[in-house]
Amino acid sequence: MLVGFLMIIPLITAYLYKENVWNYISYIIPMASLFIIGAILGFVKPAKDTRMGAREGFVIVSLSWLLMALFGCLPFLISGYVKDFFTAFFEMTSGFTTTGASALTVEELDNMLNGGAHSLIMWRSFSHWIGGMGILVFILAIIMESKDGSSMHVLRAESPGPQVGKIVSKMKISSRILYLIYIALTLIEIGALCICHIFDENMTFFDAVIMSFGTAGTGGFASTAASCALYAPCSQYVIATFMIIFGVNFTIYYWIIIKNFKDVLHNEELRFYLIMVVIAVVIITFQIINLYSTAEESFRHAYFQVASIISTTGYSTTDYWSGAQGRWPALSLGIILFLMYCGSCAGSTAGGMKQSRILILGKYSVSKVRTMISPRKVEVIRLDGKPLDNKVVDSTIAFFILYFVVLIVCALLISIWNPAMPDSEAEPLTMLTASLSCISNIGPGLGAVGPAGGFSNFSWFSKLVLSFEMIAGRLELYPLLILLLPRTYKRST
Amino acid sequence: MLVGFLMIIPLITAYLYKENVWNYISYIIPMASLFIIGAILGFVKPAKDTRMGAREGFVIVSLSWLLMALFGCLPFLISGYVKDFFTAFFEMTSGFTTTGASALTVEELDNMLNGGAHSLIMWRSFSHWIGGMGILVFILAIIMESKDGSSMHVLRAESPGPQVGKIVSKMKISSRILYLIYIALTLIEIGALCICHIFDENMTFFDAVIMSFGTAGTGGFASTAASCALYAPCSQYVIATFMIIFGVNFTIYYWIIIKNFKDVLHNEELRFYLIMVVIAVVIITFQIINLYSTAEESFRHAYFQVASIISTTGYSTTDYWSGAQGRWPALSLGIILFLMYCGSCAGSTAGGMKQSRILILGKYSVSKVRTMISPRKVEVIRLDGKPLDNKVVDSTIAFFILYFVVLIVCALLISIWNPAMPDSEAEPLTMLTASLSCISNIGPGLGAVGPAGGFSNFSWFSKLVLSFEMIAGRLELYPLLILLLPRTYKRST
Repeated sequence: MLVGFLMIIPLITAYLYKENVWNYISYIIPMASLFIIGAILGFVKPAKDTRMGAREGFVIVSLSWLLMALFGCLPFLISGYVKDFFTAFFEMTSGFTTTGASALTVEELDNMLNGGAHSLIMWRSFSHWIGGMGILVFILAIIMESKDGSSMHVLRAESPGPQVGKIVSKMKISSRILYLIYIALTLIEIGALCICHIFDENMTFFDAVIMSFGTAGTGGFASTAASCALYAPCSQYVIATFMIIFGVNFTIYYWIIIKNFKDVLHNEELRFYLIMVVIAVVIITFQIINLYSTAEESFRHAYFQVASIISTTGYSTTDYWSGAQGRWPALSLGIILFLMYCGSCAGSTAGGMKQSRILILGKYSVSKVRTMISPRKVEVIRLDGKPLDNKVVDSTIAFFILYFVVLIVCALLISIWNPAMPDSEAEPLTMLTASLSCISNIGPGLGAVGPAGGFSNFSWFSKLVLSFEMIAGRLELYPLLILLLPRTYKRST
Repeated sequence: MLVGFLMIIPLITAYLYKENVWNYISYIIPMASLFIIGAILGFVKPAKDTRMGAREGFVIVSLSWLLMALFGCLPFLISGYVKDFFTAFFEMTSGFTTTGASALTVEELDNMLNGGAHSLIMWRSFSHWIGGMGILVFILAIIMESKDGSSMHVLRAESPGPQVGKIVSKMKISSRILYLIYIALTLIEIGALCICHIFDENMTFFDAVIMSFGTAGTGGFASTAASCALYAPCSQYVIATFMIIFGVNFTIYYWIIIKNFKDVLHNEELRFYLIMVVIAVVIITFQIINLYSTAEESFRHAYFQVASIISTTGYSTTDYWSGAQGRWPALSLGIILFLMYCGSCAGSTAGGMKQSRILILGKYSVSKVRTMISPRKVEVIRLDGKPLDNKVVDSTIAFFILYFVVLIVCALLISIWNPAMPDSEAEPLTMLTASLSCISNIGPGLGAVGPAGGFSNFSWFSKLVLSFEMIAGRLELYPLLILLLPRTYKRST
């Protein structure tokens, strides 16, 4: 019902842009059906046993996400701007999971923008904003507060990062604080981009809202196929900086608000994240300095692309793969690939492995090599100065391995059948980065799915696999993977 | 001294082919210097504390391998057939680590074959055979038997696979049995290839020996740049089958000899390995059936390439990347890439992650997802019907992570600077697969390092990094990684 309610936003957009009456209908039908289904389900009496364990929490969350994408894609289909169901489903999965990978062709997108369907573009980007914080966490924050900890299972299934950070003791209040920070930062970005409008005629209010939604959810849908290439430098700097901001653990902002600067300074993940950004920007700037006309431009492109990839947003100002300036050197592309794998901080809206996991894995590797030479010394892995529980290290490792397995299996699955894919030397790279980009919820990859490319050439089968992968990545694997286990459907004993 | 002694083989070859006197000298100089150094070191009195721990074992093994490559490359340099030190060093590292990646240009190789240096080609391939079973294990088997278990540390550092398989209680006898099996299989292959000579005029006795050394060590150096493409189908089938045979755990052959068929049938790794081969061959045959003139040819190429990659040998009969028949489809290349990562059975001469580790990781992943839905149930991972010790699972995981870290770091390092590398869309793929190919000791990769390509375009820096990586991969990472830790050089307390 909430998803239905949120469709009010594109409806308002449609009104403002005086769109075709058919567009109104395309929102009203899914809204109405969602309300009716919601109402019916509300009347169904639950079975006696309403206890909710981890299994139920996981199943609820994954089914909700599948349903959201299913209903969310109806406006595209009903309005007729997208003809193919799998494309629309892929697009909305990409939206809600904040991936930002588009299967629309350039013509389809152009038709929407210039053919009177601003509202569809708004809905697409708004889905990023909804998906960013987790629709169910939202419901928990606003509507219900359970007593038996069942909401904890839902939250754990939907929240990003190795630990669920309860910042204050009550979950309801925690999520409200997070939401307020989220909304406030989004509004600040819209304001900042509106100021940029003075120097940048391309940055209209519509674009400012679209880009802010896309940045806040670390999504990556833009209003045109050119992404951010046409905006003035000032807008690009603003967007890049906000991408980095939304890649930070939101607890940090809470600490800043309550003036707990000690914890902020001692946060190893934040430090690691910022150092990684700086190193990547410096190396890439140095490598591409001759590709662009000025050093400032090289720096700006390096900064924007690094921010976009590490925050798993996926906007671009230049095409590092097939742009007019030439392909970026191998090391820069390698760094981009590596950042794709890493992702941002835990507890942010971003996807990927998360910086804290990379940090834990790095420390784990060093400790393992050390153990080899002094086997009797017990190596303790510390984070933020405190020794880490073995369970956290253990689950981080399990996550890393599962991530890798899903990545490889999906890359192989999408290689099977894509008749529309043009022949290219980079095809294995395309498959690998498409899979990586989807599981990390980024958007672009290398090869045919580079910043100027897209996912429109994939077959319906590959689109389904990638949609699955995006949801798996967004929900941190487990919820969707347990749907594949036969044991999940057995009665618990 | 042993390496010096083994140079007798190319010396004999040189005599048989009546080579230039300068070639004799190029073997005699390193032989003489090795003997002199060995003799001097033999006279040096060891320090009082001769106890040998894991650390000392690791350091000894890694330094030995570096020295072997260093002295092994002297004949190439002294004879003048290779001008560049780093190329020669890379070549011999590739030889001893049984990688088979060649940095020689086609002209350099041609000069040796037709310019009177058969002995150099023989030395190159013979190094595979030496490296296959581990030069130090050889020394242990033949010369010394220590009382305090120090040889165990050396063996553990040099042997492939997660567990050190002592097949009989005495190590010395174990390694002798393994060596006898190794020698016997090599001789059988030479014999089989000589029989093929009846149908195949390209398969001379020289070629039969070269190919058998390369197959036995799962190396991959051939006598010409065409690898196995010019041999008749019967020779190709023989070589492919022997590649698969040398990828099997040698303990299996011991069991067969002592008629312990029960253990053979219950060996999960062997089953997993053979199933993987069959599945890969079937899928690839099906995918490339239209690329070649007959179905038999498609099957033969699929079979040969799968055998070559999974056993980490690296021979080829067709160029799946840039051959005249066209590039193989994306899924086939993806499978090749995946097999590159997996490698063969533990306890064989092959490199890679090893099948048993892949099997353990797969079981681990499933058990982790299962734990999510029934957290109180303890999941036990079984192999060959017996529950696995947690320590084995733990070290497998640590190995997987370290493997991944080294792979990525080296791929980034070799991307830094390669001025001679031609510009290509597949450059990131080249870097990734070059790194993968070296750490798994395979030889070819995709892109510029595909079956028809080579490593000659890499800069000296990249060649050094890759040489390091090959040794790291051959010694299963730890011995070389601890050389990088400052702690290794501190006095133990």
